[in-house]
Amino acid sequence: MDRAIETMTPLIEPRVLKGFRDFLPAAEIERRSLIERVESVFRAFGFAPIDTPALEYTEVLLGKAGGETEKQIYRFTDNGGRDVALRFDLTVPFARFAAEHRAVLQLPFKRYHIAKVWRGENTQRGRYREFTQCDFDCIGSDSAAADFEILSMMKEALAAAGAPAITIRLNHRGLFNRFLQTIDAAGKSIEILRVVDKLAKIGKDDVLRLLSGVLDDKQARKIIDYVETKGSWDETLDAMTAAAGGDNPDSERLKTLRDFMIDNEIQDTFKIDPSITRGLDYYTGVVFETTLDDMPSIGSVCSGGRYDKLTGLYSKDALSGVGSSIGLDRLLAALEALEKIKKRETYADLFVVCIDETRGGVYQRIAGKFREAGVSCEVFFEAKKQSAQFAWAENKGIRWALIDAGDGRVILRDLAARRNSAELSVSDAVLFLKKNIL
Amino acid sequence: MDRAIETMTPLIEPRVLKGFRDFLPAAEIERRSLIERVESVFRAFGFAPIDTPALEYTEVLLGKAGGETEKQIYRFTDNGGRDVALRFDLTVPFARFAAEHRAVLQLPFKRYHIAKVWRGENTQRGRYREFTQCDFDCIGSDSAAADFEILSMMKEALAAAGAPAITIRLNHRGLFNRFLQTIDAAGKSIEILRVVDKLAKIGKDDVLRLLSGVLDDKQARKIIDYVETKGSWDETLDAMTAAAGGDNPDSERLKTLRDFMIDNEIQDTFKIDPSITRGLDYYTGVVFETTLDDMPSIGSVCSGGRYDKLTGLYSKDALSGVGSSIGLDRLLAALEALEKIKKRETYADLFVVCIDETRGGVYQRIAGKFREAGVSCEVFFEAKKQSAQFAWAENKGIRWALIDAGDGRVILRDLAARRNSAELSVSDAVLFLKKNIL
Repeated sequence: MDRAIETMTPLIEPRVLKGFRDFLPAAEIERRSLIERVESVFRAFGFAPIDTPALEYTEVLLGKAGGETEKQIYRFTDNGGRDVALRFDLTVPFARFAAEHRAVLQLPFKRYHIAKVWRGENTQRGRYREFTQCDFDCIGSDSAAADFEILSMMKEALAAAGAPAITIRLNHRGLFNRFLQTIDAAGKSIEILRVVDKLAKIGKDDVLRLLSGVLDDKQARKIIDYVETKGSWDETLDAMTAAAGGDNPDSERLKTLRDFMIDNEIQDTFKIDPSITRGLDYYTGVVFETTLDDMPSIGSVCSGGRYDKLTGLYSKDALSGVGSSIGLDRLLAALEALEKIKKRETYADLFVVCIDETRGGVYQRIAGKFREAGVSCEVFFEAKKQSAQFAWAENKGIRWALIDAGDGRVILRDLAARRNSAELSVSDAVLFLKKNIL
Repeated sequence: MDRAIETMTPLIEPRVLKGFRDFLPAAEIERRSLIERVESVFRAFGFAPIDTPALEYTEVLLGKAGGETEKQIYRFTDNGGRDVALRFDLTVPFARFAAEHRAVLQLPFKRYHIAKVWRGENTQRGRYREFTQCDFDCIGSDSAAADFEILSMMKEALAAAGAPAITIRLNHRGLFNRFLQTIDAAGKSIEILRVVDKLAKIGKDDVLRLLSGVLDDKQARKIIDYVETKGSWDETLDAMTAAAGGDNPDSERLKTLRDFMIDNEIQDTFKIDPSITRGLDYYTGVVFETTLDDMPSIGSVCSGGRYDKLTGLYSKDALSGVGSSIGLDRLLAALEALEKIKKRETYADLFVVCIDETRGGVYQRIAGKFREAGVSCEVFFEAKKQSAQFAWAENKGIRWALIDAGDGRVILRDLAARRNSAELSVSDAVLFLKKNIL
């Protein structure tokens, strides 16, 4: 009966929404491997994971966001009549989280959050509507040591991710604002920041043109001169400090960070760059971007900065912090293009060939010995031709096959070399494989 | 200007939706530790992770589901006018995934998927509207070896999760259907399954009463007799086989599974239980449930079975498989109640005390030596009183403090014992801590 009805039901086309993706094993293993590697660095630094709901009150998520966000957000009324939306980033939920749980958070509070976010973006630009963000922040301390910890953790995390040489470009928003005051342009800082942020993309002439809509020619030229300041770290910082009206705490902060970098012998990774602004008015202190030296064109793979009113929307208490975000999709694309990633669609290094289906239990027992020793091992279920089983394994990227020879003896086959070992005891086979794989 | 406007904006109450949860560090570390431990077993067996979108076409998700699901689903029209919904389980998306990617999947295909799902359930019953499912399936093989692999992986995964003794109860839906044929009740199998599934919860008398609405008294009594068959595995199976009309492939399957269990010396974990039905008509072969021996009242923490038409809604090809799902929330609650879980809100075992803020770079350099050696190490940023720093660390569960004594010498303090070490070199301190922690 059931069967008859089902046959008559028209089939539903199996497809995902535009801008959404399935991750098949090879892609998912790659993505998770990247995440696990950066996560291990966060944990080594004592950063703790948190999680927040995918769905929140729209009011909570949209509080501060402007028109662009509102157009892109997945928003609807739930069955209980609530105005709800899917989170579009991890920063806003973190601000809500920090305000809500402030009383129980031990400050400084260091957290990371790696999770999906959703935006109804135009997919023509190669953007996805569902993607993973990877944020890490330290809140509750204004000290240079907190800024430095985020910066040095970025360097470590990207190294763990397999990124080759990187450059982290650093600026200070407070210092830029001081400079704008000296040229009487402080009132237009947001518009100016948005334009300057495009410098690398659109070039000096277009920036000048755009600035001339907001400022007079002389001011615009001074801004270009400032953001184009070049030289060593010390030379650049001295010039910026002079343009900003002389010694001040923001220049001092950049000096301290430089000292800390030298203490850790990582100063070569960092450049001071007055053109880095991070367009958001949210930042108030250091701001930074990271490029891959072998592929600068892909843009920043890790950016962030210091802010001083994280929870302002939800609480009168100011809570300051410094944080950063790794662009996982972009980083992954770059590592693939640079051939820094080995694709595999299985964790298994070995599989047990099925010769006699009644020995399925024995095959699992043998496989168990390898698994205990940390070798991932599959078992083939059906007594197909050995050549078919070998082909299946090779297609998946499993290099080794195990052939049960009975009486506790086994043969290991190197599928790449197409060569069999002599008969071995299971424990010798485990030792051999551990040596060759791990 | 901005500041003035913000002060006038009324504050937004920081709160999450009913039925949704934030995970603070202690809860999230616990949840992830559980996930990582079961995941390591899946990987050891060669199961690969996949991921699918949180949001899908409603048509794709609701195809087969009945009224209950439709009422609970988060469904809306997106900005492009599409009828979309948040996934309410991982089984339906997997069916869609398998149909869509069938051509590139190597069969048998073994996957796991650990991800959030959403249901607008009644929260009064202590249910959450956002929760994590943990599914693992092997599709494309009908063999007993596949059934056995899922069963033995369940046992391993629950052991890795820290679950003490467990019992996995096993039945076969095909065998039950054969029995129903012998009592002329096969046409009502779905209704009967739903009622029998409640046996443990509502008791024999109520089951009899409910069955009498569908069947005559004699049939109902025969069903009770069947599902109450008791004895050793062999005795029970023999009685069930006789009641089902004699030897048949389904009884044979249960015999083979028993042989495989004995091959692996794990037969004591498994019981044959004719009352296990798993209410869903989706299952066609073995079905199983897992209870914790020390807390059977909490119900099944891992259940599943064999099905033969996974992709039926989307494709004419039948694709059979066997799969299971760990109830992470329930398991976590049970492990907590059984005190099998050590709560901690940080991964850090050590922190570097801040005595002089200008030495922030040096503190990070020292911390780096511990991190390289696999010891998670925090750095305190501000030169607060040492007693305040110790209290902060103890509240977080960090046991060790490191005091920089200058000239490359350090002192380790055991915060629990309130005792300082002698002055050590950093490398000796690393060795000491590795020995005491890892």
